[in-house]
Amino acid sequence: MKVDGKAFRTIWLSDDGWAVEIIDQTRLPHEFEIIRLETGIRAARAISDMEVRGAPLIGATAAYGMALAVREDASDAGVEDAHAVLLATRPTAVNLSWALDDMRALLLPLPVPDRMAAAYARAAQISDEDVAISRALGEFGAELIVRAAESKVASGKDGPVNILTHCNAGWLATVDWGTALAPIYVAFDEGIDVHVWVDETRPRNQGASLTAWELGRHGVAHTVIADNAGGHLMQHGEIDLCITGTDRTTRAGDVCNKIGTYLKALAAHDNNIPFYVALPQTTIDWTVSDGIREIPIEQRSAEEVTHISGRTDDGKIARVQLTPNGSAAANFAFDVTPARLITGLITDRGICDASEEGLLELFPEQK
Amino acid sequence: MKVDGKAFRTIWLSDDGWAVEIIDQTRLPHEFEIIRLETGIRAARAISDMEVRGAPLIGATAAYGMALAVREDASDAGVEDAHAVLLATRPTAVNLSWALDDMRALLLPLPVPDRMAAAYARAAQISDEDVAISRALGEFGAELIVRAAESKVASGKDGPVNILTHCNAGWLATVDWGTALAPIYVAFDEGIDVHVWVDETRPRNQGASLTAWELGRHGVAHTVIADNAGGHLMQHGEIDLCITGTDRTTRAGDVCNKIGTYLKALAAHDNNIPFYVALPQTTIDWTVSDGIREIPIEQRSAEEVTHISGRTDDGKIARVQLTPNGSAAANFAFDVTPARLITGLITDRGICDASEEGLLELFPEQK
Repeated sequence: MKVDGKAFRTIWLSDDGWAVEIIDQTRLPHEFEIIRLETGIRAARAISDMEVRGAPLIGATAAYGMALAVREDASDAGVEDAHAVLLATRPTAVNLSWALDDMRALLLPLPVPDRMAAAYARAAQISDEDVAISRALGEFGAELIVRAAESKVASGKDGPVNILTHCNAGWLATVDWGTALAPIYVAFDEGIDVHVWVDETRPRNQGASLTAWELGRHGVAHTVIADNAGGHLMQHGEIDLCITGTDRTTRAGDVCNKIGTYLKALAAHDNNIPFYVALPQTTIDWTVSDGIREIPIEQRSAEEVTHISGRTDDGKIARVQLTPNGSAAANFAFDVTPARLITGLITDRGICDASEEGLLELFPEQK
Repeated sequence: MKVDGKAFRTIWLSDDGWAVEIIDQTRLPHEFEIIRLETGIRAARAISDMEVRGAPLIGATAAYGMALAVREDASDAGVEDAHAVLLATRPTAVNLSWALDDMRALLLPLPVPDRMAAAYARAAQISDEDVAISRALGEFGAELIVRAAESKVASGKDGPVNILTHCNAGWLATVDWGTALAPIYVAFDEGIDVHVWVDETRPRNQGASLTAWELGRHGVAHTVIADNAGGHLMQHGEIDLCITGTDRTTRAGDVCNKIGTYLKALAAHDNNIPFYVALPQTTIDWTVSDGIREIPIEQRSAEEVTHISGRTDDGKIARVQLTPNGSAAANFAFDVTPARLITGLITDRGICDASEEGLLELFPEQK
C-alpha cells in the first residue's frame, strides 16, 4: 500500500537485486526507516527482534533469509544451518516453519550452483502468493463494504461506512494489503467513503501504532479509540460493521485472535451489527473444533501491561511505568470468539458462514 | 482504609484542628503525598486540579472549603463568594452543588460569630455520613462475597473469590471504604480470601493507578489486566463475580459508568457470572428511565487517548505520545449498561434487582 503517495510492500528486493529491504516496524509509528538485510543471520534477527511481524510477513522474510544465506553458502550444511537459525527466531509462527521447510525441500535436491537463483525465485514467489491471497480476500470483503454503503444511501443516511477493527491485521502484517484491512483498502481504492474506528489494542497497542499509521499513510480516514469504547459506539449507530483478523480459526469457525476481540463480537451481536473475520486459508486449523476448550492461550510478559513506550515531547522514545510498584499484572495475548458471534468468515476463496458447514462449502477437500 | 498499616481517610482535619489535609491523588500511584489546605481558595484548586476526585470526596472537600473560607470571612458576602468559587471548580459533579447549597443554607441564617464552628461541624458531618453510606453498602455487598466463598467451598474449588472491577470506585473516590470496593474491603477485613482482577481502565487508567494502589496498600491481593482481558478470564472460570461503581443510575436500573463497563457486563452475561453495581442512593436519577437514549455522554480530550503519563526508569513522571502524528482520536468517558445485563444493585439500603420494581421496593418514597 502507499506511504504518503509512494507504493510499498513490507519486504522487497533492493535495487541492486540481491539484498532485501524491510520497514523497521519496531520504530513505527513515530519513525519510518528502511532496513537493508544482506545476510541470513541479519534476516533472522529481523524476525526475532520483531522488525518484521505478522505470520505471512515472517514467512516471506524467512524465505528471503534462506536466499541470503544460500548466497553466502549454498552447500547442504549451509542450507541446514540457515533453516535451523531462522526457525529458532520465533516460537509459534506456523508460516515460519512452513516457508523454511518449503525452501529446504526445494533447494537440497538441486545442484549446488543452481540453488541461489532458485532460492531467490521461490522467495519472490512466496511473497507474490501472499499478496495474491490478501488481494483476493480483500476483493471478497470489499463487496460487504460496497453493500453497506449502498444500504446507507438507500436508508437516507449520510456519511462514510464506519468499520471497527481490532489490533493490526493490515498490510504491515502481510506482504501487502493485509487481512482485516484488505477489504478496506480495496473499497477505499474503488472510491467508497470509509472511516475506520481503530481499537488501540492494549497492551501492545498495535492498533494505535501500526493500524493508525498504515491507514493514515494510505490516506484512509480513521479515529483511534480506547478498547473500552466500541460498545458505546455500537449502541449509538456509529459502527456499520466490524472486521478483524485471526491467528487461528477452528474447523467449527471459532476464532482465536488478539485479546479483546471476543468483547467486540459480543457488543456487535448485542447491537445487530455484522461482525466479520478475514483470514487466509492457512490460518484454519482443521484439527481443532472447540476453540475455547482446545486452544491454549499464550501468556506474555507482565511488563507489557505495567509499562508502555511512546514518544516524548522532545522526540525521544521512552518507556514509562503505569502501575504502582508491587502490583501484579497478567497478560493473556489472545482470546477465542465463538462462531455463534461471527457473521461470516472472509477467506481468499470467498465469504462463508462461521461454521463447519460453511467452511466445508468453500473447502470441500477437508470433508 | 489502610496505607501500609496506617488508617487513612481521603480528607481529614489536621492535628491543629483547623486546616484540612488530603492525599494528592494526581501523584498516585507513584508518590504518596499529603497536601495541607488552609484556605477556601486552596480547597477550590484541590478540586479543579483533581488532587481530589470522585463525587462523594468532591462534596466533602467543598464542604470543608466553605469552612476554611468562613474562617477567613464569615460575612454573607464571604459565604456567597466561597460558594461561587467552589461551585465553578468542576462542571457536572452533583455532590458538589449539593454540599455547597447545604452549607450555604445552614450558614446564612446563623449569626456571623457562630458560622465558623457550624461550618466545621457540618463539614465533618457530611464526611461522616459519606463514610456511613459506603460502610453500609459495603456490608450488604460483602454478603455476596461471603456467599460466593461458601459456594466455592461447597463445590470443592480452591482459591480466593475472584472479583473483577472496572475503573476506581474505591475509598479514594469517597471519604472512606468506596462503593464498588467497599464490599471487597469489608469481606477482606472479615478474613474472606479475595483476589481482585483490576481493569486498567483506559484511557485514564484509574484502575491501573488508583485501584491497584489502594488495594495494594490495604493488602488486598490483586492483578492488573488490560481492559481486553476480562472476557477471556470469564470464559475460563477465573472470575466469580463482577462489581463496578456507577456515575448515574436510572429509575429503570440502567447504569452509566466508566466507558467499557458495558463490554464487561455483556461478557458476564454470556458466561453466567453475576454482575453487580454498587451505588450510594444519591447517584440514582429518578427522572431518567432509558439510559442509552436519555443520558448524554461526555466527550473528553483526545489527548487522553493519544498520550499517557507514567514513571520513567529514573523516577521522573513523563508523558509519551502513543499514536502517529495526524491520527485523530475520540474519547467517550462513559457508557450505559442496560439493566437487563445487571444481576443486582448494591445500595446503602440493601441489594435489589436492577429494575424500577427492584429500586422502588428499597425506595418506596419514589413511587
